[in-house]
Amino acid sequence: MPRINDHYSKLKAGYLFPEIARRVKAFADAHPQSKIIRLGIGDVTEPLPAACITAMHAAVDEMAKRETFRGYGPEQGYDFLREAIARHDYRARGVDISADEVFVSDGSKCDTGNILDIFGPDNRIAVQDPVYPVYVDTNVMAGHTGPADEQGRFGKLIYLPCTAENNFTPELPREKCDIIYLCYPNNPTGAVATRATLTRWVDYATANNAILFFDAAYEAYITDPSIPHSIYEIPGARDVAIEFRSFSKNAGFTGTRCAFTVVPKSVAGTSSSGERREIHPLWMRRHTTKFNGVSYFVQRGAEAVYSPAGQQQTRTLIDFYLTNAKLLREGLQAAGLSVYGGVNAPYIWLKTPGGLKSWDFFDQLLDRADLVGTPGSGFGASGEGYFRLSAFNSRANIEEAVQRLQKVVA
Amino acid sequence: MPRINDHYSKLKAGYLFPEIARRVKAFADAHPQSKIIRLGIGDVTEPLPAACITAMHAAVDEMAKRETFRGYGPEQGYDFLREAIARHDYRARGVDISADEVFVSDGSKCDTGNILDIFGPDNRIAVQDPVYPVYVDTNVMAGHTGPADEQGRFGKLIYLPCTAENNFTPELPREKCDIIYLCYPNNPTGAVATRATLTRWVDYATANNAILFFDAAYEAYITDPSIPHSIYEIPGARDVAIEFRSFSKNAGFTGTRCAFTVVPKSVAGTSSSGERREIHPLWMRRHTTKFNGVSYFVQRGAEAVYSPAGQQQTRTLIDFYLTNAKLLREGLQAAGLSVYGGVNAPYIWLKTPGGLKSWDFFDQLLDRADLVGTPGSGFGASGEGYFRLSAFNSRANIEEAVQRLQKVVA
Repeated sequence: MPRINDHYSKLKAGYLFPEIARRVKAFADAHPQSKIIRLGIGDVTEPLPAACITAMHAAVDEMAKRETFRGYGPEQGYDFLREAIARHDYRARGVDISADEVFVSDGSKCDTGNILDIFGPDNRIAVQDPVYPVYVDTNVMAGHTGPADEQGRFGKLIYLPCTAENNFTPELPREKCDIIYLCYPNNPTGAVATRATLTRWVDYATANNAILFFDAAYEAYITDPSIPHSIYEIPGARDVAIEFRSFSKNAGFTGTRCAFTVVPKSVAGTSSSGERREIHPLWMRRHTTKFNGVSYFVQRGAEAVYSPAGQQQTRTLIDFYLTNAKLLREGLQAAGLSVYGGVNAPYIWLKTPGGLKSWDFFDQLLDRADLVGTPGSGFGASGEGYFRLSAFNSRANIEEAVQRLQKVVA
Repeated sequence: MPRINDHYSKLKAGYLFPEIARRVKAFADAHPQSKIIRLGIGDVTEPLPAACITAMHAAVDEMAKRETFRGYGPEQGYDFLREAIARHDYRARGVDISADEVFVSDGSKCDTGNILDIFGPDNRIAVQDPVYPVYVDTNVMAGHTGPADEQGRFGKLIYLPCTAENNFTPELPREKCDIIYLCYPNNPTGAVATRATLTRWVDYATANNAILFFDAAYEAYITDPSIPHSIYEIPGARDVAIEFRSFSKNAGFTGTRCAFTVVPKSVAGTSSSGERREIHPLWMRRHTTKFNGVSYFVQRGAEAVYSPAGQQQTRTLIDFYLTNAKLLREGLQAAGLSVYGGVNAPYIWLKTPGGLKSWDFFDQLLDRADLVGTPGSGFGASGEGYFRLSAFNSRANIEEAVQRLQKVVA
């Protein structure tokens, strides 16, 4: 019989969000009358920007006529989109990224997992803790880790604890790391990285010949003008960082699917014989061999995000969610909870009241307030005793959720 | 510095189709007046079925309203599509496949590569030769092969030659294989597998505890009612086969992106300690962790393929391309060429005239007839001396191509 990939057996039973879905379903089945409010998974709720809708209708019509029909597109994405990205997200911020360093894809989740394909097995890999579980799980699947300990920490991975004590800003690793995952604005803590913090990371990577995997999926939520949106705003980052971006959380593309990854031509790794190898052609080879491009309609929808109307509509969407975040944050603070994030990020990260375990607080909120959040421990051992609430919901639901939370906590 | 995946250095310089694109571009730049006809890459040219267009417009409108907006969908695909697939493609043919064995994805190219993630490193893997290059390249990338020899055959892979001498139907491997890639109707040869041939493979897999990767991306082109469309029409196949299907070549979704993979719950592999491990939960874990589902619009478009109007429109599309194939086949036969395929498949496979090398014939056709095809040797050593023409083009271009080909050959 074919041998399976044994590393999968090291994974914990379920990916975090399916486990939440399972518990919520069991609760809903047992309490069919309850009006559950879901602030768990970070999924948007508001309709797509009108500019995207118009662009996608137009693209559908193009596919209905032979003269304008599109078959296979370039795997890396159409030039119209790659150029819009390079221009608006980078050059407009004074950042030197060219269109051919942008790879359009169907999701940052996919890309942060797939990027491991082009790296070897013996790298020292660091993640923040708590952390977006996909970074860890995909390393486990690729055989880059040992088994998990009792707290769910996998062998060989280097965890960088982010807690209230260090203001959710981890120390630089003491050991030499080859690859470091950073996510800012952070999922799940909602923390942001100042220019000084990012400079420290770029300097570390430069000094240690490391590569930063910089996940900026939530950059659109940055309201503080002093906070960088891209790692490439830091001098030297072009040589040491790969950046992941998405249309999911700015334009609401979670069900539409479009993202991109920036691989500067100046980033390099090494072969086993010690030769310098550029990462860009490796990712190009991976992307063109194992991926076939994003749906044409969707790329036209993403392009419309950069139109003047799209920019304004996207801003309105983000402001809406940020106001939700403010309501949650202030409502919970008023109830006496310790609350973090929610200013430059759509996530509220809170200390569970009375030192409750994260999953116990999850069950309590579901049971007593018909409210779904995400247990901090689901993001890593250092998330134990914390809890994440997402600001993605209708205003009415957010207001109702605040009231219910205040009752439970009181 | 991070170690890169050294196996990438074993790959040959370019994926076949980018190399063709490069040569065609060089020619076009040098001959700006030439009217090039492209029968190289197997990309459709006709507009999407009207039923799909209508469904996608409706889906775009749903995304414009809060009440009908869709965020993250199930990674495995929406039930409406999985059920339509199970019902129409399988149960309607008397085949026992359930909706939860169907995984919707954005492409068969992606899936045939990604499926390797869940298998271990020590399997004996067989491919047909000539072969769709992605099967080979993704195994090289995954480290399942040795380096390539002079003819481009990679060490450790088992090649099953398919030539005119064996009627493009390979012998069963003499050695014990763990995984065998089969593609029927075949890309590139256009050969089909009879029920007897497929039964031999299922029996081989059963006797040897092997798994068949069955790529049926071109099944819609089967016109002979005695030829199975699915490997699961063969008794026992549910226990030994994974099937790949696509909407690219039946409904013209090459730029729209939708496909699916069937992983029956009864297919199993083994862990390194010899325990039986079902493949379905492994693929589920891979698919939910490293993929985020296909765009909602696109899934609605794919669902419409199964509507009565969609079925009729798809049939019309396929018949159009099959008539193209017939014109090509008969035109080349009239010119005295040895021609294969093109009856139950959109590909014509021909012996190059005068024993020309495949790439020499490619250059000759481009140079003397402004015509692009695909060199057989690009698909493997046994493809040397053969050439592939695709029937995907307008009728006028096909007729013009036949005339030009006849001139060159004469």
